[in-house]
Formats: sequence, C-alpha cells, structure tokens
Amino acid sequence: MPPPPTAVNIDVGAEAVDDNSASTTPAYLTVLSVDELRANSIFSGGIAAIGLSDAFKSKSNSSKPVSKDFTYRLTLESKSRQPSPLKQAARYLSREGMISLGGGLPSSAYFPFDHVSVGVPRGELFSEKDIHQYAHNVTIGKHDMKEGKSAYDLSVALNYGQGTGSPQMVRWVTEHTEIVHNPPYQDWSCVMTVGSTSAFEMCLRSFCNRGDYFIADEYAFCSAIEAGRGLGNDAVGIRMDSEGMIPSHLDEVLSNWDEKTRKAEKPFLMYLVPTGQNPTGSTQGAQRRKEIYALAQKHDLIIIEDEPYYFLQMDKYVPGGSESNGTTTAPKSHDEFLKSLTPSYLSLDVDGRVIRLDSFSKVIAPGSRCGWLTTSSKVCERLMRHNEVTVQAPSGFSQAILFKLLDEHWGHGKYLDWLVHIRKEYTTRRNNMLEACEKYIPKDVASWTPPAAGMFMWFKVKNEKHPSYGKKNLVELEHEIFEAVIDQKTLLAKGSWFFAEPESEHPDLYLRATFAAAEEGAMVEGIRRFGNALRVSFGLPALKE
Amino acid sequence: MPPPPTAVNIDVGAEAVDDNSASTTPAYLTVLSVDELRANSIFSGGIAAIGLSDAFKSKSNSSKPVSKDFTYRLTLESKSRQPSPLKQAARYLSREGMISLGGGLPSSAYFPFDHVSVGVPRGELFSEKDIHQYAHNVTIGKHDMKEGKSAYDLSVALNYGQGTGSPQMVRWVTEHTEIVHNPPYQDWSCVMTVGSTSAFEMCLRSFCNRGDYFIADEYAFCSAIEAGRGLGNDAVGIRMDSEGMIPSHLDEVLSNWDEKTRKAEKPFLMYLVPTGQNPTGSTQGAQRRKEIYALAQKHDLIIIEDEPYYFLQMDKYVPGGSESNGTTTAPKSHDEFLKSLTPSYLSLDVDGRVIRLDSFSKVIAPGSRCGWLTTSSKVCERLMRHNEVTVQAPSGFSQAILFKLLDEHWGHGKYLDWLVHIRKEYTTRRNNMLEACEKYIPKDVASWTPPAAGMFMWFKVKNEKHPSYGKKNLVELEHEIFEAVIDQKTLLAKGSWFFAEPESEHPDLYLRATFAAAEEGAMVEGIRRFGNALRVSFGLPALKE
Repeated sequence: MPPPPTAVNIDVGAEAVDDNSASTTPAYLTVLSVDELRANSIFSGGIAAIGLSDAFKSKSNSSKPVSKDFTYRLTLESKSRQPSPLKQAARYLSREGMISLGGGLPSSAYFPFDHVSVGVPRGELFSEKDIHQYAHNVTIGKHDMKEGKSAYDLSVALNYGQGTGSPQMVRWVTEHTEIVHNPPYQDWSCVMTVGSTSAFEMCLRSFCNRGDYFIADEYAFCSAIEAGRGLGNDAVGIRMDSEGMIPSHLDEVLSNWDEKTRKAEKPFLMYLVPTGQNPTGSTQGAQRRKEIYALAQKHDLIIIEDEPYYFLQMDKYVPGGSESNGTTTAPKSHDEFLKSLTPSYLSLDVDGRVIRLDSFSKVIAPGSRCGWLTTSSKVCERLMRHNEVTVQAPSGFSQAILFKLLDEHWGHGKYLDWLVHIRKEYTTRRNNMLEACEKYIPKDVASWTPPAAGMFMWFKVKNEKHPSYGKKNLVELEHEIFEAVIDQKTLLAKGSWFFAEPESEHPDLYLRATFAAAEEGAMVEGIRRFGNALRVSFGLPALKE
Repeated sequence: MPPPPTAVNIDVGAEAVDDNSASTTPAYLTVLSVDELRANSIFSGGIAAIGLSDAFKSKSNSSKPVSKDFTYRLTLESKSRQPSPLKQAARYLSREGMISLGGGLPSSAYFPFDHVSVGVPRGELFSEKDIHQYAHNVTIGKHDMKEGKSAYDLSVALNYGQGTGSPQMVRWVTEHTEIVHNPPYQDWSCVMTVGSTSAFEMCLRSFCNRGDYFIADEYAFCSAIEAGRGLGNDAVGIRMDSEGMIPSHLDEVLSNWDEKTRKAEKPFLMYLVPTGQNPTGSTQGAQRRKEIYALAQKHDLIIIEDEPYYFLQMDKYVPGGSESNGTTTAPKSHDEFLKSLTPSYLSLDVDGRVIRLDSFSKVIAPGSRCGWLTTSSKVCERLMRHNEVTVQAPSGFSQAILFKLLDEHWGHGKYLDWLVHIRKEYTTRRNNMLEACEKYIPKDVASWTPPAAGMFMWFKVKNEKHPSYGKKNLVELEHEIFEAVIDQKTLLAKGSWFFAEPESEHPDLYLRATFAAAEEGAMVEGIRRFGNALRVSFGLPALKE
C-alpha cells in the first residue's frame, strides 16, 4: 500500500489543470521535481532485481482513486500463469550474509565485455553531423555499481533479469509516464516490453480467446491485424474521418452487436493509434478521445493505446511555403511542450481500462527493441508473468545504453528537448513532402489531408476517374496503379494492406507514403514520380516542368 | 533450390567420420574453410534485409537428403499466419534507382548514437582481470557499411529488421551450426531468437493445442513447464537415470498412451536439455541419444533440443583432489575439441524432426537476449512469421555487438577457444564444489553424481532417514530441509520446483545447487553450510573442524 497523502508533498509540481481530475486536484510530478523524489526514496537494482513502478511514483498518486478490476476478463492462458518459484526465491537474497547456490545465473566474470562506450549527443548538438563531430562518450563499466560510479553496470544488465525489466529502466519510464500523462488513478504501473508489436500480441493473448473480435480502425496497422489473424482474432473495422475513428459508428457497431450472427461475444478489446495513425496519418483531437473513452466506458472496453508517434505532433500545415510553417515548433518550456500535446487516453483513464504502449522505435531507434506499457498494477502483474516465460526482458545492452543516455546523460528534461528536436525534423520533412505534393500530384485524381503527427501521408485516389474503373475491382485497380508507381521506380504502400476487414467491401482507393525514411531530395523526387505515374495511369497529360 | 553438388567442392573440410552419415559421406564445413566459402558468395545486409541460411551454407549440403515435412502438424495459429505485405514489398527495393516511400522505417539520421565501442578480450587474454586491463576496443560506427569499413553498422542494426534476424548474425550462426553439427539433411535453416525461453514458447504455440501434453524429463526446467501451464500444455514426465531420460520408460508411456483416459492425443513434442540438464545436471551419452532419437522416429515426435550448456561438457571428475582433474580440458585443435563433444540431436537428425535451441546466455551473457534455433526450412519459415508479429528480431545493439565480437573480432576459431576457456573455468568450479561436498556433506543422508556438463549439482536427500519422515509429506519435508538450509544463510533450489508433473507422486527428495554464480570462496562456504543444515535437520552430530 502506498503511504497516505500528506498535507504537504515535497515532490509537488505545479497545480494540475487537467479538467478530468477531481476538484481537489493533486499536485503532479514534473521534470524539476524528479531529483527531490529520488532523493527521498531508496533504489535497489542489483542482479535480477524486480522493477515495480510503485517504488518510483510520487506521493501525489496515493490521493487518486483505485482502478477498476479488469482481471476477471483475462483469458484462461493469462489467469493460469504461476510465479516462477526460482524468481520468487530471490526474496531470500536480501537477508544479510546469504549465499546463493539457488538460481542458475552465470557469473559475470565470464562475460567477455569490459565496458560499452557510446557516442551520444553533446549538449543540444542534436544533428547527425554534430553528434558525429562532437560526440559525448558515455561508458558503462562492468562493475560500476560496486565501484559507486553508477546505478547500473554490465555485470547486472548482462545477467538475467525479471519480467518487469530492470529497475533502472522501470524507474525512468515510470517517472516519464507520470510527468507526461499523470494517470488519474492510483495503482498504475509500467512494465518493460521488447517493443509494442510484442506488447500488443501479449494483450491479445491476455484478453481474447480464439474467435473473439477486437475493435480497430477500418484501416489499421497491418502487423496488428496480422497478429490477430494467427490467434483467430479478426478485427472489426470502424469507419474513420480526418480525426480517425468515428464515435457514432463505434457506438452503432457495439450497440447492435449480435452474438448469434457474429458467433462471438461483443468485443472487449479496442486497438487504437490515436496520434499520427498508421496508415492514415490521422490524429484524434482531445474531444474525439473523450467521446471514444466515454463509449469504452459505456460498452466496457479495454483500450490499447499504441502511441509510437505521440511526440511527433506537429504544427498545423499552412499551404504555400515553408516560411510560414514550423515557426512554433520550439516551445519555451518543457511544460509548454507537454501542454501542447493532445492528451493521451492514459491521462483520461479514470477506470484503468487503458493499456498504453510506448515505444522508443520512432524517437530513439527501432533496433533498441525496448519499450514499455502502462496500465493498472493488477493487469501489469499478469503481463509481467507473461514476459517471464516468453521474452523475459529487453536486451541488457539496450537497457544499459538507454539508461545511460536517458537517465544519466540526458535526464527527463533533455530527453524532452530531444523529442522537440525530432518532431521539428519530421515537421520539416512533412512540409517538404506536402509542398512536393502540391507541385506534382494531379489534384483531379488524388487528394490528401496534411497530417498533424507521425510519419504518413494518405492519398485518396479517385478510382472512379480511372480508365479501368468498372472493368477491374478495387484491389485489381489498386494493383494497376501501384505497379504504375513501381514503373516510375517509386514504392508506396497499398491501402488494402491495411484493411482491418480484408473480406469486406471497400469503395475507396488509398495509397500511403512515408516522409520518414528517404533522403529529402529522394522524397521530393519520389512524389514527382508518383505524380507522373498517376498521370500515366489515368491518361492525363504530362506535367510541364 | 541449392545448386547441385559438384565433383569438387571448393569449401571442403576433412572427410566426415560421423557414423550416422551415408556411405558417400559428404565433406563438411570447418573453421578453416569459412573464409573460402564467404569469398565465393555474395553478402547483402542492408536495412531490413532478410537473413536466410541458404545463402550461407556450404555446397556440401546439397548432396544430403531433403527433410520430412512436419508442417502438417502445425497448429491453426501457426498455419494461418500470412507474410507481412509491407515486408514482402521490400523485394522491390533491389531494383536499380528505386525510391522507397513505402515502409515506415525512421531515418537513421535521427538515431542519437554515433558509435558503440566495446571492450572485449585481446588475443587469448580471457580472464576478467586481463579483459579489464588489456581490453581490445571494437567499434561499431553509424555508417561503417557505406564507408566500406564493416559488413554491419548502427544505421542498419538499429533500424527495423526481419523476423529472421539480421543476415550478419544469421550468417555467423549458420556457419557455426554447420561447423559444429553438420545436420545430415539438406534443407536446414537457422532463425535468430530473443532467447530459448521465447523460442520454446514459440514451439509450443506452433505444435501444441490447448489440452495437448508434451514429453519432458520427470524433473525439468521450471520455466518450460510454466510456459506450458499457461497454454494448457502439461508435461508428461519420463523417468530419469544418471544419463537423463530413460528410453524404455519413454517407449512405455507412448506405446501405452490411451487417448480416452488422457483426454488428449499422443504427445508430439518432446522437450529435452540433453547436456548438463537443468536441474539434475545429467548428460545423455551418444548411445542414449541414438536410442531416444529412434523412439522419436517410432512415435513420430518433434524433439526440442534446448542446449544452453552444450559447450560446458567437462572431463570426468576424479575424486580426491584437483590435481588429477581438468588436465585434459585443453584440446590440441578445434577439431579435437568438437570431436570431444557428445553428438547433438541435430547432428543425428536425418528426418528434420529436431528443433535445436542455441543460446549465448551461458557462454557469452544472458542479457544479450539473443539466440537462434535450427530446424528444417519449412518449419523455420513458420517460426520466422511468428517472430514477425511478436518480438520481430533480437535487439540491434545485441546483434551488432555480438557480430563485432564473434564475427569480426574472433571469427569461428577464436570463439571455440573462448568456449574451451569457459568450460575450463566451469570445470574448476565444479571440481571445487565436488571437493567441498566430499568434505562437508554427510553421505549418510545425501548423495550426488558428479555432473559431466553444465552448472548444476543435484543432491538426493535420504528423506526416509529424517526425523519428520512419515509425519510430513514429501513437499512438507522438503520445505523443512530447505528452511534449515536458509537458516544457515544459504539458498538452494527445491527439487519440487522442477516437477514435470506437480500432481504426481514423488518418492524421492532432491535439492539443486549451482556452481555457476557464487564467488568461489562463498561457494565452498555455501556447501559447508548446507552440510551443517543437513546435520541439524537430520539430528546428526556436528562436523568436527
């Protein structure tokens, strides 16, 4: 049990302005109050130490209500997991003078690594060129903890860990989560994951039985749909507009769910990418999120909030030139930056019905294969048990390097500065692609909405104007256009790859382009070729250049 | 299709002496012929490149028979996975001049890492002290590939990868597997895993439905049993002797399997740790393996060969002093070392019914969370699809660091030297623990067999001599003795933690100790305390010291 709230919390930040909080709004953790929070707590992070968020949350959490209990909806698989007796026995090791001949952990004396040294950004020199030229080296030694040099070292990071992930990383992600989202219930926790793809699959296995459906956007991240297919969990696609999922259609589908015709219970799990959705690039506004959350309460849904692009929220695009764009991408303070972000579902979640998936893939590097999830401690405990007998924990190299960068080198504030930098870079890329689109894409046959976040542009192609319209079905026509683009030596993604319901009728034809990957010159050239391909395929005159 | 065998293979090693091979024994890959093999093949390892073993195997494989097809036994889950259309589309990228706006891969320009530099052993200076004092630094740059400095770099390793793992690591493990095991069928492949715990769970999900049993030793790795429990796959424990699983009992259980009383089909999957088994420390000899393989053929089983301790095979222990032990642990050549190892199931596997799980956890570091599996390409393809929608691939930091150490710095030969070093270290530890046992453990009430491999000692405690015998059941009595050891400030593992069938009757009482983890002085002291605890618990007189 957390301690009861005190009259004066030492770890207070500014007064919360979140309109979802109760009238006696508790103070919350800020970047500036982390040091004080840490100074007043004990950290223990030795070999195979468990990392529980409760040890790292500010006292302000204890005045919040307790979450609802959704464990009754767990699958038999999830419910039947037992704690590992070997890992449980680790509790004896805290006794003074105890010698362990128990766990089969190899001696770190036999790890063939003395240290890992990583070149990371110096100060705010964030460009690739500067990182190369002025790299600051952070070094993780083998026995830094014993030598009092660090809270983490290779002898610990490279040994076995617990299903929670290392306390070092759990502490950091817990603090980050409280600073950014401040979940409005008391008993939330974070568990490290090996990435959100794995975390989503873990959620499916924990809440869906074979034959159950889950809710998704009508165009959804294909890897999530594919994960469901293997498990016999098909998606029900909800119609979308420029802000993503349309609440009225969600309500309609769930209110009219007929177990007999569907041969399945009403869905319980909903998968969302609320910000910079993949593939459509749409971002749900604050009001949209509140409406969907209210529907999740009405229909008793668990919301999987998969948010790799959360920090890639951009200024509104003003057509007509890059001068007018990107001018407000440099917030004056961390607080201003965080307040500028659309509130997460986690920050609205009074019930504990949100499982938020966070990832370093789009803001640090996909190859870290390290992320985390946040939800009620009751559900976290089950997901941690799942980790225990599957992936165990993220790579120790990844955890140690991320800890060194995020915690010891940057701290929470500098990491937010990095996020501001990254979103500025992606904003520039988005703007460049949008300008290229205005210049090269024939608007008679294709349209798009400037994305407000993420990495994706979603083109609606007017298939009814195509010469093959009526002769080919939508998927054949899409393939013809896709091939026309390939003939111009440019690769886009087909809209049909993202059908939540591949078997259903789809009247519209879409193509997805990313502004994340290509060199900037190539990106503009790719859009020019795409424009040419559309002209060729639709029989339009060539663009005069 | 691999090319047909040529009259003279350029990549030949010595003539094989394996008595399982056909009379026209093909030549096989050796440490010395790897360079020649590589010189005659093309390596492609860019961003998100797929890593297929076929590109890295020697020509000698093409003269071997093709494996049997076990995919008909795959679960619905495994069968229904579709290739990711996005990952499939990567094939267009090989076209000259193609610009990709397709996959949502972030630009490596935004990875906040310039290089990773790792202190690894110089030459054969393998002790921890020497690695610290004389560390050789290997460095992985961001764009080493483009700059022609290396076959791998951070811009690739830290981006997304394929479900196979990186071609860089797949090449290395494929060569290693051919050098060590030379599987006797043509179409074997390796797939990278995030460790054998995850790999085993993947195998369970691929071959067992809820309610199916799998075969295991009567005392088995508790994490494997626990993974099965969540999936509704209980283990059937086969009786063991000092060489592990007893073939006649395996045959008896399977021959008399009654689907009606068991309410389940005859098991299809068998889980084995043939070398240095966890928890018993037993090692199956070559003859035992052949007998069990023949039974797997008779009863049509898939064998999961989980071999983290394979290279920790030790010389026979001679009681009475360390002088007489460990003298033959330094083989004269790599060939001699490899020939000294008990043949793996993979090396006997003419059918393709073995799934071998390899791990770096016990010979490099558990925190790498990187291993691999080897089986027929047909099954590998399905397991790779499983990776695709779950863990994706091992950490890029892990893969890059392992590649740098194993491939570029060590190569296959020096890695074998490292393995020889590691097993020598563990042999010394084993001998020290055995000597301590002889000195401190009361033989009236406990017995043990010197392990021939691995990290574990397995003590049979004569429960019938305990004062509480008859008053307490086995598990209660075990707990009393376990607590007596805890009272002496030493932690062992209970035998009951490893019951394959927790609900069945177990007449014998065991405790497990590891010689892997504790400092050597503490290890001897721990055994002394264990001996004292037994004397106290059994009411024996104290040892005179």
